[in-house]
Amino acid sequence: MAQAPGDIEALIALMARLPGLGPRSARRAVLHMLKKRAVVMDPLAQALAKVAATARDCTVCGNISDHDLCPICADPRRATGSVCVVEDVSDLWAMERAGGFKGRYHVLGGTLSALDSVGPDSLRIPQLVHRVEEEGVTEVILALNATVEGQTTAHYIAEALAPSGVEVSALAQGVPMGGELDYLDDGTIAAALAARRRL
Amino acid sequence: MAQAPGDIEALIALMARLPGLGPRSARRAVLHMLKKRAVVMDPLAQALAKVAATARDCTVCGNISDHDLCPICADPRRATGSVCVVEDVSDLWAMERAGGFKGRYHVLGGTLSALDSVGPDSLRIPQLVHRVEEEGVTEVILALNATVEGQTTAHYIAEALAPSGVEVSALAQGVPMGGELDYLDDGTIAAALAARRRL
Repeated sequence: MAQAPGDIEALIALMARLPGLGPRSARRAVLHMLKKRAVVMDPLAQALAKVAATARDCTVCGNISDHDLCPICADPRRATGSVCVVEDVSDLWAMERAGGFKGRYHVLGGTLSALDSVGPDSLRIPQLVHRVEEEGVTEVILALNATVEGQTTAHYIAEALAPSGVEVSALAQGVPMGGELDYLDDGTIAAALAARRRL
Repeated sequence: MAQAPGDIEALIALMARLPGLGPRSARRAVLHMLKKRAVVMDPLAQALAKVAATARDCTVCGNISDHDLCPICADPRRATGSVCVVEDVSDLWAMERAGGFKGRYHVLGGTLSALDSVGPDSLRIPQLVHRVEEEGVTEVILALNATVEGQTTAHYIAEALAPSGVEVSALAQGVPMGGELDYLDDGTIAAALAARRRL
């Protein structure tokens, strides 16, 4: 027989599918919840039910939101004419944590990939071109990952936006904060050298 | 501003308090749920709400259950007269995974600890003595952890049960399955030697 009632085993199986949790840690997490029902399990169940009921994609930028417009698209102070293009919602959150960007975002939902047959239409690139035309966007900042797929996608977007005449830029590549040259890969050092700046 | 709407940040904060998850992995887990709302988040929210609404302690043995009696206490085939005493529900689940025990359980909810002022009354030990008297228990198996606290608690329970005349035993101590002598601690080897058995 199973160790726990069926509902609890079902909950453990669902928790075990989350990234970073496996069968053993999911069992431990559920047991912890069951021991602290009032202070851990009930608030978590309520918070999860609330998010599951309200979460949706922002209709403009693709960010996760609890309204049709995410807080960033709904904030008139962020209508700066700058749109930052990111691959994923997690990248948007990382940009916001870093601070410094005052404009709005556009979440692609991935990168172009011939192997996985991901084309421009499944990446919200037409919506980006449309936004640039309709919203009076003056600058598009490509904040895509420094991977082959990310850079390929960046080039495709730059070409797709060329007819609109909008300014297109990309995040600088170079030595990361705290980076020691001895431990950096050759590509990073070469990119930092090519993009060196006068002091 | 926060990276995500308030409800989502609240959910991440609650997830981050589970054992085995921290702020970063909780954020990743919630983001994964948000991306797979129909196949991950909604089933998880429903399963958690169901368990939160029904989970309670078995009134007899202290196991986690969705009824007043847990499946083991409700199963007449397990009325063998044997009661296995464990510290915690996780130990009960471990015993069930191992198989081999066909009787019922009694969950103490911890071990005696003078430092944390945990006395016999906060450990369901009086309920155990009462069960032994009322249920016609013939054998009590102490499956407590092989720690100082576990063994202290085992001795206390053995003395508390002495007047009832019930047979009290404990799990064997010795070399674990696959154990290599060279890697075992001295205490385990000494215990295995003292409990050696004739072939």
